[in-house]
Amino acid sequence: MKTEIRLAGTGGQGVILASVILAEAAGVHEGRHVVQTQSYGPEARGGASRADVIISDEPILYPKSRRLDVLVCLSQQAADKYFDDLKVHGTAIIDGFYVRECPREGATCLSMAETARTELGRELFTNIVMLGALARITGVVKLESLEKSVANRVPVKALDLNKRALALGWELGARPRDRGTKG
Amino acid sequence: MKTEIRLAGTGGQGVILASVILAEAAGVHEGRHVVQTQSYGPEARGGASRADVIISDEPILYPKSRRLDVLVCLSQQAADKYFDDLKVHGTAIIDGFYVRECPREGATCLSMAETARTELGRELFTNIVMLGALARITGVVKLESLEKSVANRVPVKALDLNKRALALGWELGARPRDRGTKG
Repeated sequence: MKTEIRLAGTGGQGVILASVILAEAAGVHEGRHVVQTQSYGPEARGGASRADVIISDEPILYPKSRRLDVLVCLSQQAADKYFDDLKVHGTAIIDGFYVRECPREGATCLSMAETARTELGRELFTNIVMLGALARITGVVKLESLEKSVANRVPVKALDLNKRALALGWELGARPRDRGTKG
Repeated sequence: MKTEIRLAGTGGQGVILASVILAEAAGVHEGRHVVQTQSYGPEARGGASRADVIISDEPILYPKSRRLDVLVCLSQQAADKYFDDLKVHGTAIIDGFYVRECPREGATCLSMAETARTELGRELFTNIVMLGALARITGVVKLESLEKSVANRVPVKALDLNKRALALGWELGARPRDRGTKG
């Protein structure tokens, strides 16, 4: 069982920190094999930001993501660029505010940035909301593992807000019929 | 021209954050091709932490580090584990406090943790001191590029201390005969 995940957005949206947190949750707290990668090319100056996380039950021999199982896009540019790398039946999650044109039917559109802004007062938490939603939708990592690695990666005084961001994302990621009954 | 760098230590020493800062400095601020990778296996629970950064003038086709040009070790465990991956004429930098037995002649031993503790009051800054020393010794990235990416990755109120950490590392990394005349 191997899952290739890409988190993509623009600089400042925190996708690299999110990928580090996701990798630690699966690797350190669940003992799985994980490779987490960022690549920068000449386009890096354009402000695009992306990070890949591969989570596997077996050692990962080839560490570069080739065909994504999961793609999360926090910007239109990311959606335009990376949907071609997603498997036909892959899971796509897009931000409802920043991605206006979804390149593929069946993507899950979630108000991640808006939730961060309205519920927590700052879009800064969008990346953590994203992780909660990702965990709920894909089941690739447990919420409690994310909580542990968040605690390791954010300032102590911001911990409560970050935990709340995870919980909000977890709720956001529930299927509509589950909403309000679980989470 | 391609440089494969590994930063290694124990959890909490900040080697992953350091690798993200190094990758951004070279990738975003110098427009080079960069791949930054963390891997976790079952050993991750042991508290070891490592991150690889490959910096190249050409696109990087194989993103996994195989033969290191540069290895920085902040723990004895890291030194014991990774020196075999360093090229024969590779550059080794070890922390003078945490690495008591150096596995190879010619490693550069620097008081990075001690400098952070005595000059800045907290070992927390060891990873940033390390980056300053690494830049000075290897020339792989400019100090000003590191300053820009540090500013993007640390809390605003900690920026001055982090800049000072970079400068202290830069000074520490000077060859003995340069010390006090440059930096």
